[in-house]
Amino acid sequence: MLHATSAALRRRHDAVRSAMAERGIDALVVTSLPNILYLTNFTGSAATVVLTRERLHFLTDFRYVTVVTEGQASSGACPALDLVVIQGSYDAALAALLDTLPGRIGIEAAHITVNRYEWLLETLAPADGAPRALESTEGLIERQRSRKDIGEIEILREAARRLSVAAREILGGIRRGQSERDVALFIDSTVRRTGFERSAFDTIVASGPNGALPHAHPGERILSEGDLVVLDFGGVYASYCVDLTRTVSVGRPSERAREVYGAVLDARNQAIAAARPSVSRFEIDAAARDTLALYGLAEAFGHGTGHGLGLEVHEDPRITRRRPDVDTRDERVEPGMVFTIEPGAYLPGWGGVRIEDDVLITDTGVEVLTDVTTELIEI
Amino acid sequence: MLHATSAALRRRHDAVRSAMAERGIDALVVTSLPNILYLTNFTGSAATVVLTRERLHFLTDFRYVTVVTEGQASSGACPALDLVVIQGSYDAALAALLDTLPGRIGIEAAHITVNRYEWLLETLAPADGAPRALESTEGLIERQRSRKDIGEIEILREAARRLSVAAREILGGIRRGQSERDVALFIDSTVRRTGFERSAFDTIVASGPNGALPHAHPGERILSEGDLVVLDFGGVYASYCVDLTRTVSVGRPSERAREVYGAVLDARNQAIAAARPSVSRFEIDAAARDTLALYGLAEAFGHGTGHGLGLEVHEDPRITRRRPDVDTRDERVEPGMVFTIEPGAYLPGWGGVRIEDDVLITDTGVEVLTDVTTELIEI
Repeated sequence: MLHATSAALRRRHDAVRSAMAERGIDALVVTSLPNILYLTNFTGSAATVVLTRERLHFLTDFRYVTVVTEGQASSGACPALDLVVIQGSYDAALAALLDTLPGRIGIEAAHITVNRYEWLLETLAPADGAPRALESTEGLIERQRSRKDIGEIEILREAARRLSVAAREILGGIRRGQSERDVALFIDSTVRRTGFERSAFDTIVASGPNGALPHAHPGERILSEGDLVVLDFGGVYASYCVDLTRTVSVGRPSERAREVYGAVLDARNQAIAAARPSVSRFEIDAAARDTLALYGLAEAFGHGTGHGLGLEVHEDPRITRRRPDVDTRDERVEPGMVFTIEPGAYLPGWGGVRIEDDVLITDTGVEVLTDVTTELIEI
Repeated sequence: MLHATSAALRRRHDAVRSAMAERGIDALVVTSLPNILYLTNFTGSAATVVLTRERLHFLTDFRYVTVVTEGQASSGACPALDLVVIQGSYDAALAALLDTLPGRIGIEAAHITVNRYEWLLETLAPADGAPRALESTEGLIERQRSRKDIGEIEILREAARRLSVAAREILGGIRRGQSERDVALFIDSTVRRTGFERSAFDTIVASGPNGALPHAHPGERILSEGDLVVLDFGGVYASYCVDLTRTVSVGRPSERAREVYGAVLDARNQAIAAARPSVSRFEIDAAARDTLALYGLAEAFGHGTGHGLGLEVHEDPRITRRRPDVDTRDERVEPGMVFTIEPGAYLPGWGGVRIEDDVLITDTGVEVLTDVTTELIEI
């Protein structure tokens, strides 16, 4: 299994420690599992990390002791790791550990629940006679994660290459007369056979009018003459997610289908052309959205143009409309960012089109990581 | 797609409203997606519900409007639903709605993050001149969910029947010489072909020494003579999860393998024999744990004996050791509860055995929902 080297992990720790220092935080309680994986190579389903200026305290239970111990004997050993094996509850062990650590404690406010937070506040021993505070932080690790390091880029390139291989096989293999569910099963098997650990999300096969539902569940509907069929699928490779959508036509597409398809393809091309270092993510979204508007399809595109890819299938950067009610920090895309470009058009009762590729922002421009024809394929 | 009837949804709402009334709460903000599904039949990935004494306010975005509208025209329409289509952010829309509602507001403290909570606290308009409070609640809906209603039991029986069919095909189909990864792919395809929407969790295929890791990832290891192989898989059927484990032997099992297998099987049988209405969940766990201790395997069994099944693959009741540092409410199992019985023994460097079935507590005893041989199968 591919993993980050100890040196890469150390660079990640250093970057997060810098962000902690800026916030005046001495110990960061990390409760997001993808963030824990990013800092430690741990792929299990239960752990809590406390990162201090010097150490990384790793709390896990019985089930994962062997895998952590083996990992620490590998080239991806986590630097300065102190393993704490939980006997009772995670929270009790966490409180006991935090009581031994001096200074200001930060929490990941987007990844800790109110009940856990309130229990910790009640349980932590007072420091200097006052109740211990837990400082809310946001994005200390995610911001770092949004700019992939060289090892991550290598993994994502390979993942996108494999997903493209799978996509070509899928586009060549689906047939009219199959149900959406049959096609979804075929897609998922193909993705797995191409070397992915699992699908990155529930595969979408939305045929005919179902294509107007951007997140339809595959059902018993049979792919039939005249349908457009939206196929949206992804895979997890070495813990990293890639994501791809193509829309195919069952039989010869109608003129309207060709028009809508052409508009979405133009939007996809314009968004990719707009993507380069230091461009605002809102501008990339606008490149797709304004293009669709030229075709009279502004109302038909209700979601964002893209989302970051990495240890999660939806992460920063979000390629969306600027919304006045939401924070607009971290506006510019930067080298090392990997995200989807996936404009669509959804016409209730008629159907939908979406075309999605994965791109990397390089030092000078953009690299399209996925490689599958964007012609409207007839099956 | 199977779903709860409007009448069943109304009974669920009434039960949750009773729990709200006991807590003096007039409006409950529901942020857990499984809880939202339980109250509304909504299977999408983004929504927030506010349940009041009279209405159910349903906040969702563009992507799900069609599916909600169609659902409201079906036999599973959600009673007293007011649809709010989000334009900007969910939280802004939620705050605006809450500002219009009188009385005390409850939140699901286990399902809302600290940043969302803090933002709401800052944003809500004062009421009667004082900042608006958000009361932490826990388990108001989960407690109701842990006792399945008749429609849910019907779905879970059918799901367990289908998983048993899949398991028999899987046990008959795996071969020495395959890799763990090959076997996992075969399992997942079989589960899907048996009518499941998806796997309920990442399938475990842990061969030989890997069997000592209760949550191993399937890898390139080849199933080889003398291995015990733990196969743990589950499926989601009509949104409900079932879960099954068998351990097989590659070739003739060693005497030690037979001993350990026999001990785990005895523990499984004793736990099932202990399960009936009004028994403590800790007693059911003890029935398995004490049995393994008789075989000298107390140390080899580090996890709980079982977990509830339903809209989530791990839910209440938890069939675990009594732990003094954890709340012990809701101790007794009750008719309508569905959970796993899955004792195991894990011997580092040697391997492991786990046997898992799904059971329903009936009015008078227990019904084993899964139906697969518990003999040690040789492949």
